[in-house]
Amino acid sequence: MSVAHIDLNADLGEGFGRWQLGSDEAVLQLVSSANVACGFHAGDPSTMRSVLSLAVQRGVSTGAHVGYPDLAGFGRRYMDVEPAVLTDGILYQVGAASALATAVGGAITYVKPHGALYHAIVTDPRQAAAVVSALQGLGGDLPLVTQTGSVVADLCRAAGIAVVTEAFVDRAYLPDGRLVPRGQAGAVIHDRQLAARRAVRLVTEGTVVAIDGTVIAVAAQTLCTHGDTPDAAGLLAQVRTALQERDIEVQAFA
Amino acid sequence: MSVAHIDLNADLGEGFGRWQLGSDEAVLQLVSSANVACGFHAGDPSTMRSVLSLAVQRGVSTGAHVGYPDLAGFGRRYMDVEPAVLTDGILYQVGAASALATAVGGAITYVKPHGALYHAIVTDPRQAAAVVSALQGLGGDLPLVTQTGSVVADLCRAAGIAVVTEAFVDRAYLPDGRLVPRGQAGAVIHDRQLAARRAVRLVTEGTVVAIDGTVIAVAAQTLCTHGDTPDAAGLLAQVRTALQERDIEVQAFA
Amino acid sequence: MSVAHIDLNADLGEGFGRWQLGSDEAVLQLVSSANVACGFHAGDPSTMRSVLSLAVQRGVSTGAHVGYPDLAGFGRRYMDVEPAVLTDGILYQVGAASALATAVGGAITYVKPHGALYHAIVTDPRQAAAVVSALQGLGGDLPLVTQTGSVVADLCRAAGIAVVTEAFVDRAYLPDGRLVPRGQAGAVIHDRQLAARRAVRLVTEGTVVAIDGTVIAVAAQTLCTHGDTPDAAGLLAQVRTALQERDIEVQAFA
Amino acid sequence: MSVAHIDLNADLGEGFGRWQLGSDEAVLQLVSSANVACGFHAGDPSTMRSVLSLAVQRGVSTGAHVGYPDLAGFGRRYMDVEPAVLTDGILYQVGAASALATAVGGAITYVKPHGALYHAIVTDPRQAAAVVSALQGLGGDLPLVTQTGSVVADLCRAAGIAVVTEAFVDRAYLPDGRLVPRGQAGAVIHDRQLAARRAVRLVTEGTVVAIDGTVIAVAAQTLCTHGDTPDAAGLLAQVRTALQERDIEVQAFA
Repeated sequence: MSVAHIDLNADLGEGFGRWQLGSDEAVLQLVSSANVACGFHAGDPSTMRSVLSLAVQRGVSTGAHVGYPDLAGFGRRYMDVEPAVLTDGILYQVGAASALATAVGGAITYVKPHGALYHAIVTDPRQAAAVVSALQGLGGDLPLVTQTGSVVADLCRAAGIAVVTEAFVDRAYLPDGRLVPRGQAGAVIHDRQLAARRAVRLVTEGTVVAIDGTVIAVAAQTLCTHGDTPDAAGLLAQVRTALQERDIEVQAFA
Repeated sequence: MSVAHIDLNADLGEGFGRWQLGSDEAVLQLVSSANVACGFHAGDPSTMRSVLSLAVQRGVSTGAHVGYPDLAGFGRRYMDVEPAVLTDGILYQVGAASALATAVGGAITYVKPHGALYHAIVTDPRQAAAVVSALQGLGGDLPLVTQTGSVVADLCRAAGIAVVTEAFVDRAYLPDGRLVPRGQAGAVIHDRQLAARRAVRLVTEGTVVAIDGTVIAVAAQTLCTHGDTPDAAGLLAQVRTALQERDIEVQAFA
Repeated sequence: MSVAHIDLNADLGEGFGRWQLGSDEAVLQLVSSANVACGFHAGDPSTMRSVLSLAVQRGVSTGAHVGYPDLAGFGRRYMDVEPAVLTDGILYQVGAASALATAVGGAITYVKPHGALYHAIVTDPRQAAAVVSALQGLGGDLPLVTQTGSVVADLCRAAGIAVVTEAFVDRAYLPDGRLVPRGQAGAVIHDRQLAARRAVRLVTEGTVVAIDGTVIAVAAQTLCTHGDTPDAAGLLAQVRTALQERDIEVQAFA
Repeated sequence: MSVAHIDLNADLGEGFGRWQLGSDEAVLQLVSSANVACGFHAGDPSTMRSVLSLAVQRGVSTGAHVGYPDLAGFGRRYMDVEPAVLTDGILYQVGAASALATAVGGAITYVKPHGALYHAIVTDPRQAAAVVSALQGLGGDLPLVTQTGSVVADLCRAAGIAVVTEAFVDRAYLPDGRLVPRGQAGAVIHDRQLAARRAVRLVTEGTVVAIDGTVIAVAAQTLCTHGDTPDAAGLLAQVRTALQERDIEVQAFA
């Protein structure tokens, strides 16, 4: 008899130099996969090493959270980066993270684009192809985390790159399956109980209630919560408890 | 009967974005080892890929040319970087370069510090130990290029890290074996014939004439010329010809 | 009897640290207005001071050439910068340039957006309004250089900000008055004679021949040539000679 | 009869993009002078505008807190910046801050170097002269905040630049008048009561108890507390209360 299970991922290592963001240690107690910022939108080498080292100690999988080269904008501003340049920037970030992971006895086991890049490759075939090209340049073995129905998911599959589908526990959905953009009312979900109910529903039914009340199908092998919200750890703990009450095991996909 | 041989290395990939520096293609016809800037003091991911790809095509060995995080100063300004932070920054740079090298069918086979970092670790035990720590974190297999008698060379040997000793064909020496600092008269040698004579002397006699006329012993497994001088390729060609006339083979150390 | 006159402007100070671009000294002999990069897309404080100082010596007007914060992309990649953030970034750049100009006995007398920002505000009302807001924050006295028919020109006029209309001598036009995008065949004009004929035609007839042969009306108080092309000075010299042969005086607008 | 008074200054606007640091609003209720980070070691244009605007509303004086170009190191790492380059970087930062201050109805009324630059110019005559040169380039009217006995204070006075002497309420002193370096035990004072007693003593007696118990003379026209400590506002409130109990008025020097 198979046991239900799901991966929980969060964005970590999002400080830079003197600046810290989120509670990496607390969140690492609760997730099974840590998306580690790689220095382009957040994260510096020592912050990366620190979170990678903590993740190894906790047995948490680590992925490269790759972004646009935009510290000032935290990678949340679309940039019209030429595809070849984007590919090379992703190779650079994943390579950097891999060296630091190796140095602390770990490994980068997946790639997840961040922020505006994450959203761009849901629909933009040029930047999506650039990401796939980077994954091929890395040997083709690292899976990509993206949302269901994205252009990049199709391109990955065509190229033989594994895709891990993701749903967002703390972000509201539009009825067409896209996220409500940041800055719009209700875009980010702060209610722990609501987040927990959504997580359970995603795993047990594969659905989410969109912002207009529509129930939509959302396939997900991993659930994302954001590490940079003040209550990140509290919300995650509630999600984790709710999943355990339903005998859903939290387990890394990679 | 053994044949005399020597490695010729040069700093390459020193552009950044729109800005180019030196003639990577011309210099790659002449050297056996290319020190590839890794994005901290110069070099961006696409510039790195480009020079790595050309080097692979030419059969030239490629090393990670790691520096302080200082694009504005081209890595030529001393920075009082905390050792642990320096270690992590070197891991980051070498990892990034390795991923790009792998993507073009090559590999990073050595590490050479750049500019102010290169000079700092000749004498500063804290930063030197940080560089050794990075090499250990990378697995301990990559040799370090440094000048004879440096603190970092001693620390490498104590740690079981291979050292490749280097002499400078186009930089003047002080009688104590250090380089004449940039900015001082005569620090950089532009005369092709003189550079060529110095190269031959370094290989055949293991000596160099210092700026005050003293003949000093300088052990060297590789000879460096700088890629960012206007006549870099012309000077290198003369050096190479002079070596060949003495039946000294140009051959990568790694 | 009025004498025909026109301003010639070029982008200058586009180096960064160790990297140089274009021939600032040569171009400053030929233009009446110098667009000085302000450190966001190119230019560092010392490069800025150097070109500002040379411009003052030559009696050339100096404007702040403001761009997106993107050194790696040379400000040529569209960035979805929030309007308030864009406004503040322009204030920052103009203020920085003004202090350096004052230190060398000059002044910033106009603002010209660079690259992708220049083009964005031709059509994007949000970013255009942000630029106008910056000009208001600067006191409202500095004119903006932009092309005829741009959204930002309309917004400037509505806000009481002076507009200086600009045409491009070395860039091809589409029949609708926009520039042929960089990267497309024929986008950049390298032929000195052709550039010179276009300059004369722009001043005497107010028209330009678009890439498809259509003759279009282009009002221009200043003509732009790019400083980062290898033959920038040669092309400009030809333009200047052709204008003088028609008794058209080269004279700064500000 | 003269009333005793003193200025209280704190470093503010030390966030960058997504990252915040300290409680600018709370601290602005308590100080008379705000040192505003200018984008080189911390601070981005919008963060700068925000804190400048709040300061204007509160009637708090604003100075340019200028640093080395080192976001990753928060300006706390010594950099061997060439004097001319340092001068230009300071002009750039002060100019940028002035434009933003003007846009919100304020003005930059003094300059205070930050972090490693602050400490370097206490003893290094080359970098100190570079700072003085920047102040001259700005017109010579802005005073410099520095500690008593610094090389830069002597150079300022020789050049006719006003000096505002500063003491640190929350940093321990060595018996020779220098600060106990960060990272050493006891370097930063977190005890509110102790800080308050030190503040009163500095104003009423002009002395401070060094870390070894020695009482040393420290002249101070302004007292600094750091804005990036968790209890910055709490400590400052205690200092302010203690001063008021002694009828010492808190009042900006500029």
